[in-house]
Amino acid sequence: MTALATWTDGPTRSAIVDFVDRVTTEGGPDYVEPLERVAVLDNDGTLWCEKPMYIQLDFLIRRFAEQAKADPSLRTKQPYKAAIEGDLNWFGEAVTKHYQGDDSDVKPLVGAILTAHHEITVEEHRSRVEAFFAEAKHPTLGRAYTACGYSPMIELLRFLEANGFTCYIVSGGGRDFMRPITSALYGIPPERVVGSSVGLDYRDGHLFTTSQPEFLDDGPMKPVRLWSRIGRRPILAAGNSNGDIEMLEFTRGLRLLVLHDDADREFDYTAGAEKALEQAAKDDWTVVSMRNDWASVFGD
Amino acid sequence: MTALATWTDGPTRSAIVDFVDRVTTEGGPDYVEPLERVAVLDNDGTLWCEKPMYIQLDFLIRRFAEQAKADPSLRTKQPYKAAIEGDLNWFGEAVTKHYQGDDSDVKPLVGAILTAHHEITVEEHRSRVEAFFAEAKHPTLGRAYTACGYSPMIELLRFLEANGFTCYIVSGGGRDFMRPITSALYGIPPERVVGSSVGLDYRDGHLFTTSQPEFLDDGPMKPVRLWSRIGRRPILAAGNSNGDIEMLEFTRGLRLLVLHDDADREFDYTAGAEKALEQAAKDDWTVVSMRNDWASVFGD
Repeated sequence: MTALATWTDGPTRSAIVDFVDRVTTEGGPDYVEPLERVAVLDNDGTLWCEKPMYIQLDFLIRRFAEQAKADPSLRTKQPYKAAIEGDLNWFGEAVTKHYQGDDSDVKPLVGAILTAHHEITVEEHRSRVEAFFAEAKHPTLGRAYTACGYSPMIELLRFLEANGFTCYIVSGGGRDFMRPITSALYGIPPERVVGSSVGLDYRDGHLFTTSQPEFLDDGPMKPVRLWSRIGRRPILAAGNSNGDIEMLEFTRGLRLLVLHDDADREFDYTAGAEKALEQAAKDDWTVVSMRNDWASVFGD
Repeated sequence: MTALATWTDGPTRSAIVDFVDRVTTEGGPDYVEPLERVAVLDNDGTLWCEKPMYIQLDFLIRRFAEQAKADPSLRTKQPYKAAIEGDLNWFGEAVTKHYQGDDSDVKPLVGAILTAHHEITVEEHRSRVEAFFAEAKHPTLGRAYTACGYSPMIELLRFLEANGFTCYIVSGGGRDFMRPITSALYGIPPERVVGSSVGLDYRDGHLFTTSQPEFLDDGPMKPVRLWSRIGRRPILAAGNSNGDIEMLEFTRGLRLLVLHDDADREFDYTAGAEKALEQAAKDDWTVVSMRNDWASVFGD
């Protein structure tokens, strides 16, 4: 089987194959020892869909509705009101207002996010995530969230591993939200998932979630957190948004930026990626066009 | 070759071999999938010597002396004065006073530790660590620090790996102080070293050390940090001090506590391990007697 068969024959696929050839050619000028072949990949918008909303936000909104069912006093408060009414626009508006300098909706939203799954063990948290993925479906693509991974990126992970790379997810998404499914979805085990998290408390042999933020693994924190976890500078990075710029800069080697330009098969947007696209043009990062470079987007 | 040849034939060695047999016997009641075979091991006093002082403290004291040479105004201040005068007692006294409720010496010491290597790139930090280990020797054992690893524990790491385990160091010591040497010393790569750290700042493609503490990977923080890094509950843990209690409690499987009772070949002390030894007796942790259980302590 041809490597990267889900990628169309063209300059992007060639850039990847040529790079991997160079770093794996023993005695060549660009040879890199297998242990140093570290690849880091963003998750939302890079390995799976992030539109019309982050998959984790769906997980949280369902929890808000559950909390409001259990506690009627929450039903008149945001974001619980929007959650039980299915008013998804409220969540989008909260973020838009935040970027316009008005945090009146984002503040209660962040508070609700931090307390949505607090004071439970990490094992109980995993069970809740597993229950969500067992039934939740993408609202417009009509497929399970666990089938929303991009086939070409998953094939890229396998291609890199076959060439001695170790691949890590480095995402702004929740570390312990991703871990229960990354093995099945991407073949990436929990110890290679770097992400955001609330603080954890140790008591009586167990770890409990808190409502204190610990890491927000985005922007300049991505290189910090990946160093903390890996202790090596990556030689390949893939991202898709402004939050990936610093991780791509920190990488010495191939930098991939996934461009969502495929309204037919996925989505078409550049909002939140404007600066990353500018820097890609300036610094010769490799822009991956979903429409042109991917022979298929999703598996069956 | 017999597995664990550096361990004497006896109940401790048997406890380890029996445990590994049980978790690797497919179809047996205690079988554990290879990916879940996670072992976590403390470093100071568990994998290498921590007496007469932490090896990292020697690294820091040499740096204080270097700073005092470059800046004469530091020479009358502690801990720089003690460092240039070779007054190692001052450092021991500072800690003793701290435990007696007097932080007058520990405060400037902590401040000096946090600024000893600040505002340099992580690569420059690694160079300083490598330069230290290239020349520094243990003050009483007369061997290079890089030869101060315990042979039976290193053999245990290999034995575990041969049985499908993945081994991590989880230490109160500095993460980026250990990483440059753990591959050569223990066969443990940087990505499997969990430890304390100052915060890092990302600027212009580089990560810089700061003087802000980020993690102190000791006591109840050990399970928190190992979960953050690994995302699995260990099935084997090894420690030697009170700072390892919570990590040992969090582990479901074999818990090893190294007892320093070998004044002839290493050191004989229980200070700082009193509570751990009590809990080991109560909860049936496996106490490893250096004197009785280890056929040899160091390699050549």
